[in-house]
Amino acid sequence: MRTVFVNGEYVPEDEAKVSIFDRGFLFADAIYEVTSVLSGRLIDFDGHMGRLERSAGELDMALPMDAAGLLDMHRELVARNAVDEGLVYLQVSRGAVDRDFPFPPPDTPGTVIAFTQTKKLIDNPKARTGIEIITVEDLRWGRCDIKTVQLLYPSMASTRARKQGAGGAWLVRDGMVTEGTANNAYIVTRDGTIVTRDLSHDILSGITRKAVLACAKKLQMKVEERPFSLEEIDNAVEAFTTSATTFVQPVVGVNGKPVGDGKPGPVATKLREIYIEENLKTAR
Amino acid sequence: MRTVFVNGEYVPEDEAKVSIFDRGFLFADAIYEVTSVLSGRLIDFDGHMGRLERSAGELDMALPMDAAGLLDMHRELVARNAVDEGLVYLQVSRGAVDRDFPFPPPDTPGTVIAFTQTKKLIDNPKARTGIEIITVEDLRWGRCDIKTVQLLYPSMASTRARKQGAGGAWLVRDGMVTEGTANNAYIVTRDGTIVTRDLSHDILSGITRKAVLACAKKLQMKVEERPFSLEEIDNAVEAFTTSATTFVQPVVGVNGKPVGDGKPGPVATKLREIYIEENLKTAR
Repeated sequence: MRTVFVNGEYVPEDEAKVSIFDRGFLFADAIYEVTSVLSGRLIDFDGHMGRLERSAGELDMALPMDAAGLLDMHRELVARNAVDEGLVYLQVSRGAVDRDFPFPPPDTPGTVIAFTQTKKLIDNPKARTGIEIITVEDLRWGRCDIKTVQLLYPSMASTRARKQGAGGAWLVRDGMVTEGTANNAYIVTRDGTIVTRDLSHDILSGITRKAVLACAKKLQMKVEERPFSLEEIDNAVEAFTTSATTFVQPVVGVNGKPVGDGKPGPVATKLREIYIEENLKTAR
Repeated sequence: MRTVFVNGEYVPEDEAKVSIFDRGFLFADAIYEVTSVLSGRLIDFDGHMGRLERSAGELDMALPMDAAGLLDMHRELVARNAVDEGLVYLQVSRGAVDRDFPFPPPDTPGTVIAFTQTKKLIDNPKARTGIEIITVEDLRWGRCDIKTVQLLYPSMASTRARKQGAGGAWLVRDGMVTEGTANNAYIVTRDGTIVTRDLSHDILSGITRKAVLACAKKLQMKVEERPFSLEEIDNAVEAFTTSATTFVQPVVGVNGKPVGDGKPGPVATKLREIYIEENLKTAR
């Protein structure tokens, strides 16, 4: 039984509850972050908290706890649940008030919940074998740069992928890949250029994306931040995703067709290795 | 203190809680309906339950209670809270399981919550004066025909409207009005034709919309179901919205400009009167 965090208290997971009037439950009026844990330490915590603050700012939502308090709480959860490898999920919502569309007064106390999951992140078999993905039309809202819990469509797309025996889905808007359901998407072209969509309202500004692109530049790999098409995937030699909990994950097939030679490629493999090495150094 | 319904139990509202792992809270994986109450009776209950079943079907979500059980529960809530005029809000989510994007096994028990709000619906001053609205770009997802709790954008638009002193917002996609933040949108052209957007994935199939269009046809008013533009609002003689709890509500100004003569018009006024009269007959 996990111990989880709900509004200042550490409680057993089966007692962890929020009001039915919570705006996170009634309006998806909530934001979140997922921070990975390696060797019991938090990876890129400051990056995640910076993005949480940005999400809150875009939605005029007050954060009920500051970064220092959130760090203490994350560490406490990791310790209480003896998480060596896994993640901490954090969600902040605008709080519980009687149902009405407009935001409640800014002094309405927000809701903060957090919980851990234990998962093998480094020794993840999918990092060795790569995953197959499908592509699905991107039907999400127009502000995918804000990390909200409006995750029904990514959830539907993941479900469809699993039914088709795939390990994930990439979303496609106007013929161009935006991102994965819970990760950023990349291809490597024949001339060795890493291509990933540029930041806009269409995609999440991945914390891992930023760190991995920094690694790529350090390794003097060529990076282009621009949309890429389904046709470009057909011609790519590699494809991969990045996210906080999968780091760099090779994509070896798209819609049933192999990418390149259908095996994890050297670029993704190298980036994964360097990313883990670099980010363990700054783990908190 | 209201008595509300949570998974088979009637509880005081301050004890009404759901798990933090509820998919309604973590993924906006939940659907809802709002049924109005007049003289203590439910308006168009069957219409709302039919739409709930459709929403659930589109999302492969099982409904944990059947229509008869939901009717009993709605009536019980109305009675326990002595609601003469107001509404019953009903929400069904896919239930509480550890967080993972794909849908959990279909035998995962769903969550059902419901609560009442007491409101003056017939003697609503806004029905006499009409409301001013603003228009806002429609940034919602691509399946607005499914009544999910992914309501953050409508909530943002309502907040913006209120800040600007307006009573609501209409959403505009590619220059054409889709619908209001929580209602369907209509204009009346100079030749007396009622125009409202045709049903598609872009708008909710309003239960009140259907009933009001039936009233219009009965009154031999001309109805066109098609998208209309902002320019057409400028040339309209009337505008109005429909929803379960506002019935027919005149819109007398859009973006600071009067619609027609800036007063509630005869079409909206007549439709409101007939709608209430007709639907009281079939109230349950």
